Amino acid sequence: MEIPSKILSNAVDEIATLPGVGKRSALRYALHLLNSSDSDFAAFVGALTSLKRDTHYCSRCHCISDTPVCHICSSPKRNQKMVCVVENIQEVMAIENTAQYTGLYHVLGGVISPLDGIGINDLTIAQLIRRVADEQIEEVILALPTTMEGDTTNIYIDRQLKQFPDLKITTIARGIAIGDNLEYTDEITLGRSIVNRVPFENA
Amino acid sequence: MEIPSKILSNAVDEIATLPGVGKRSALRYALHLLNSSDSDFAAFVGALTSLKRDTHYCSRCHCISDTPVCHICSSPKRNQKMVCVVENIQEVMAIENTAQYTGLYHVLGGVISPLDGIGINDLTIAQLIRRVADEQIEEVILALPTTMEGDTTNIYIDRQLKQFPDLKITTIARGIAIGDNLEYTDEITLGRSIVNRVPFENA
Repeated sequence: MEIPSKILSNAVDEIATLPGVGKRSALRYALHLLNSSDSDFAAFVGALTSLKRDTHYCSRCHCISDTPVCHICSSPKRNQKMVCVVENIQEVMAIENTAQYTGLYHVLGGVISPLDGIGINDLTIAQLIRRVADEQIEEVILALPTTMEGDTTNIYIDRQLKQFPDLKITTIARGIAIGDNLEYTDEITLGRSIVNRVPFENA
Repeated sequence: MEIPSKILSNAVDEIATLPGVGKRSALRYALHLLNSSDSDFAAFVGALTSLKRDTHYCSRCHCISDTPVCHICSSPKRNQKMVCVVENIQEVMAIENTAQYTGLYHVLGGVISPLDGIGINDLTIAQLIRRVADEQIEEVILALPTTMEGDTTNIYIDRQLKQFPDLKITTIARGIAIGDNLEYTDEITLGRSIVNRVPFENA
């Protein structure tokens, strides 16, 4: 697919850097933007520029927030002694959607991944340790992805948190999704769900 | 899915105006842009701004072009007496990919669609008529989409072109795609492919 204009081709290449966007979709988006009205286009570019320039992060949980402390951290209804450690804001939104969690969050901003050049100092792990000490946190729930990088990060955080003898360190339950068939569940998940079985009244 | 920041939410809404992009993908793209480096972000926004500001159209065929006359129109290898009328630049690229067409193009910029507020004067139909007269075009190939709007536009152009008695007006062949099964072809396509059958040696 040869694009007859360097300017268009350049825009397509840039749009195709977005995750999961191929050249064909990028061309479609570029032509859509090109054909949009000047005011629509200005609104589009303005919203992106503002996103990069004006976005702030909560000083406690490092979640994206328009206020210095986010609405979750500043809510008196939340359990201020419980912190759920997640990779990114998407996980905060997913857990909030369940309406089952009443504690606070701590957004790491990624997981330890030497191949991607993400080290311990690129994440908010030091801030988490400080927070646990300063805010007298009683429970830290690790909710990182079950990947090699997520596991490595879990182990590192767990070791750092061992300095607080009274702190409860937990992780979210892995098991068979509700409605799923045992027969088609992968053996690691099924195995863990048997080892970590729960009293029937909790299910 | 509640987004905890007005700025982020605004960016997501704007990105979701792109064709076929939902809120969830838009959020993914927004967070990708937010986490990208300042220089990558500047390149992204710069490419889009330049697209809108600097893109030019070929003065003959109205295709996107960095030069006043595009490389197809200015090529001595192309048949300068044959014009293929298409809706947009995507169709030019698709036909060019076949390497089977050696004539020129004429990009209408859309099809007549009163519901979308696209009238005759929003398209380059008048320019096409003038071109046929000025450049002594011998054949116009109509390659607009087979939709009601495309058909309407075809009929309107055909009527306008009737003023040139020597002009050959053709349309691209519709029929069963190569490799497709007769049994599963819709009856309109199959019917047309029988009515418009071609000599065996041409197939």
